[in-house]
Amino acid sequence: MTSTTPGRQWNTRREAKARRKQQGAAIAQGKRIPTGDIVAFLEAVLLPGDRVVVEGNNQKQADFLSRSLAQVSPGRVNGLHMIIPSVSRVEHLDLFERGIARKLDFSYAGAQSIRISQFLEDGLLEVGAIHTYIELYARLYVDLVPNVVLIAGYKADRDGNLYTGPSTEDTPALVEAAAFRDGLVIAQVNEIVDDPADLPRVDVPGSWVDYVVQADQPFFCEPLFTRDPRLIKPVHVLMAMMAIRGIYERHQVQSLNHGIGFNTAAIELILPTYGESLGLKGKICKYWTLNPHPTLIPAIETGWVESVHSFGSELGMEPYVAARPDIFFTGADGSMRSNRAFCQLAGQYAVDLFIGSTLQIDGDGHSSTVTRGRLSGFGGAPNMGHNPGGRRHPTPAWLDLIETDDPLARGRKLVVQMVETFQAGGKPTFVESMDAVDVARESGMPLAPVMIYGDDVTHVLTEEGIAYLYKAQSIEERRRMIAAVAGVTPIGLKHDPAQTRRMRSDGLIALPEDLGVQRSQATRSLLAARSMADLVEWSGGLYAPPARFRSW
Amino acid sequence: MTSTTPGRQWNTRREAKARRKQQGAAIAQGKRIPTGDIVAFLEAVLLPGDRVVVEGNNQKQADFLSRSLAQVSPGRVNGLHMIIPSVSRVEHLDLFERGIARKLDFSYAGAQSIRISQFLEDGLLEVGAIHTYIELYARLYVDLVPNVVLIAGYKADRDGNLYTGPSTEDTPALVEAAAFRDGLVIAQVNEIVDDPADLPRVDVPGSWVDYVVQADQPFFCEPLFTRDPRLIKPVHVLMAMMAIRGIYERHQVQSLNHGIGFNTAAIELILPTYGESLGLKGKICKYWTLNPHPTLIPAIETGWVESVHSFGSELGMEPYVAARPDIFFTGADGSMRSNRAFCQLAGQYAVDLFIGSTLQIDGDGHSSTVTRGRLSGFGGAPNMGHNPGGRRHPTPAWLDLIETDDPLARGRKLVVQMVETFQAGGKPTFVESMDAVDVARESGMPLAPVMIYGDDVTHVLTEEGIAYLYKAQSIEERRRMIAAVAGVTPIGLKHDPAQTRRMRSDGLIALPEDLGVQRSQATRSLLAARSMADLVEWSGGLYAPPARFRSW
Repeated sequence: MTSTTPGRQWNTRREAKARRKQQGAAIAQGKRIPTGDIVAFLEAVLLPGDRVVVEGNNQKQADFLSRSLAQVSPGRVNGLHMIIPSVSRVEHLDLFERGIARKLDFSYAGAQSIRISQFLEDGLLEVGAIHTYIELYARLYVDLVPNVVLIAGYKADRDGNLYTGPSTEDTPALVEAAAFRDGLVIAQVNEIVDDPADLPRVDVPGSWVDYVVQADQPFFCEPLFTRDPRLIKPVHVLMAMMAIRGIYERHQVQSLNHGIGFNTAAIELILPTYGESLGLKGKICKYWTLNPHPTLIPAIETGWVESVHSFGSELGMEPYVAARPDIFFTGADGSMRSNRAFCQLAGQYAVDLFIGSTLQIDGDGHSSTVTRGRLSGFGGAPNMGHNPGGRRHPTPAWLDLIETDDPLARGRKLVVQMVETFQAGGKPTFVESMDAVDVARESGMPLAPVMIYGDDVTHVLTEEGIAYLYKAQSIEERRRMIAAVAGVTPIGLKHDPAQTRRMRSDGLIALPEDLGVQRSQATRSLLAARSMADLVEWSGGLYAPPARFRSW
Repeated sequence: MTSTTPGRQWNTRREAKARRKQQGAAIAQGKRIPTGDIVAFLEAVLLPGDRVVVEGNNQKQADFLSRSLAQVSPGRVNGLHMIIPSVSRVEHLDLFERGIARKLDFSYAGAQSIRISQFLEDGLLEVGAIHTYIELYARLYVDLVPNVVLIAGYKADRDGNLYTGPSTEDTPALVEAAAFRDGLVIAQVNEIVDDPADLPRVDVPGSWVDYVVQADQPFFCEPLFTRDPRLIKPVHVLMAMMAIRGIYERHQVQSLNHGIGFNTAAIELILPTYGESLGLKGKICKYWTLNPHPTLIPAIETGWVESVHSFGSELGMEPYVAARPDIFFTGADGSMRSNRAFCQLAGQYAVDLFIGSTLQIDGDGHSSTVTRGRLSGFGGAPNMGHNPGGRRHPTPAWLDLIETDDPLARGRKLVVQMVETFQAGGKPTFVESMDAVDVARESGMPLAPVMIYGDDVTHVLTEEGIAYLYKAQSIEERRRMIAAVAGVTPIGLKHDPAQTRRMRSDGLIALPEDLGVQRSQATRSLLAARSMADLVEWSGGLYAPPARFRSW
């Protein structure tokens, strides 16, 4: 028998954690860290080169902890390997500027995307990889196990039990990876209660949490999914009508995810008007995986929606959500529970359709939001915007995309790109080559940062019409179909009118008139709500929009 | 503005739950149900037609609750829609025989697969769909939201806080769907403790659990992943050597999932011998997503393994796991934590390779374990055994499968089918047409129950050789490659020796000698452990095999 490694110690992680806690013991009172001592505490428990998760989520930010981390002395804490789902805060990148951190694994960077590009170029930052959200969580359990996890919640008790409520988001997935691998879990909360009974409920058990600290101010949260109906244009209404007739009705789409665009907001807002007139209520759009979009309120109130499971919350929607427990996921205390890991799972495996928008689509249908100088990442789109090969249960919509008689044929997830042919500012959406390809080459990335690959896209919907890409028999045919709906962009100008006529009659593409959609009807008057005030009214006064949306 | 549904009530689920609890109040003492009253309690709180999740997992069974449910009066409780991840218990199907249940959604049925087929034929049971595990969990948040969830844990306190420990498995994913949608959560435990401090830790917060009941005996748990090294044959060793040289070493496979076959057990057992002799330690097989296989002990003890994240536990391995916290996921209390949802996610998105076995493979590479009269389902294989289109992070192995210069090319998950050309009993593994196709037609299923589709398989490994299917330029070429390694099965007999020679020299297929694997070396003496007793010895006496494996 080969001998075992002599004298190997098997609890080095546990001992390292015990040492960290020893270092922190002079500062913490039990599990509680005094607010003013957080920087000193982080300096005490962190080691150079640590792998540190900071909860920067799509909405919720552990910003007290990230601001505090950016204040530690780089002489004591440096070379950290940061794992941040959504790099959204200035201080996330200050960490790299100050030398506190060196390597970054992430999923999405909105406001910080330009700075990441600059830092990469300046050699201040090394990117591990860009992921889709649940792919990043998954790696926390395999080859990116964290040493320290910094998260945010509303309330904690002194035992570390956490109430994360409507903004649970990524927290459970991030905490579990550390709590069960001898990592250190530190939670900032808005309030620490003395009596556990004062927690509305427990979202994360105290057994999983090592320290809690009351933040200097409530955690930052961004209302990313709020779209003011005032900004919805007639072209969005036209495209929404096409989506309902040409995709949702045609394929009997019952479960779906919507992105954050004005296009999909328009779909939500014409269900109670246009959708109703088509007699589609109860037949389409029943089960949703998305955040509580305010523009979904009229569809909910008119009985279209059976359920909504959410990645995160949406500021101002909390009272409305709490008053609609038949629709939303809420706890015994009455407040909402979100969960990005499970909602991404649901959006991947349990829904008929993903519909999203993008900045650039090439002639093959590949798309990306990465443009020159902006390393914005992916978020959840690649996960929901592909055909999950592991799916085995059928639904009418999924089966409807089978185009052969092969007994081994399987259905397909509907993946719809809904874009205007030109972006604001006159830049074409359809391009010869995506900027993402150049960005990859210039920055030495092993892969071009493609958000959704062309072979995963089943429909492209523009103001010109719908290309039913899943019907394409070849890559060449797919290209012709895309060109046919790409308007006067460089790709669109390549289209051959004779081919387009043939594809129309073959049902490969459809123009509004082929779908029975009247362009003259596509006006804002079809919108069930035309302003934020209308949404508040629909909600019976329960929806309380954030200040910046209160323009009425 | 279109008017809202007049007078609609938005808390019908919450009120229904309150009514159920009212019905149960005469029996329960707070959250505690007396053991002897469980049948009466279930009759009190359940309604005909309810959607009920029973925790039948791959290992752990909420068997006290399922046995009790099978005893309710069908006059009071009937037509239930059961959701059971793994249909493993006789009483799971007794429910249908007695008319208590009518519809079944599930993922896997091992021992009960024949009876499901019979019941389907007899019209006693209607199958909703067969899913992969996390696809089934995902639907709990979309269109299969449960009314009642019946689960199992080791311990609870009187507030419902649960310790599920090494056997956490599916529990959190099942509970959350009910706890946050006004469903009823009932947990059986082996012990109810008076003092919350007597729980080793909290795996599921009491806020999520409505009732706990002490079971009449500890929950049933099956040691599904224990393979006695005594049963590993030289042919398994040969195939294991080929896997290591021809796949793991060649593609630099660092993170992986192994199935439960003797083939993969052989791989685990020759890492410390054959793998060591090739100088591969630290270069391959570092990060694992699998249950604590006893046959992995020698590789762990010799320093091959950096981490193991698990779907569930394995009976007898608990003390060993607890003594190796650097390798396994364990809580602050020292005992293991498993989590099937996260491990399936990790197995899908975070590992380089999935390797599994099957009963039938057709000429196109499609495979299934469904054979005539056995509706066995899928378990986790379809999820881990496909190329996840949402993956965006590269690893050396993933990138190594790119075969073009296209800047938009992406890598691939390695999906390996490792099978002997004939099954025990002389049935060919490679067949003209899978039984699954006939089963689907005969039982009116909309889809043939294919476990892994041919286009997802990158390698087929038999005792004859390896077919590198990812290199195939066409379906015809893929067929030829499969035939070349299919031995004297009907598929294998079709192979053309001249073609095989060409494919060998082109590197499309490889025989043992092409890989530098010496058949003469393929003996049981290469196994680091050749019996259960050897495994116990390797573990330093920490591993305590279940009685049936103690044959030495």
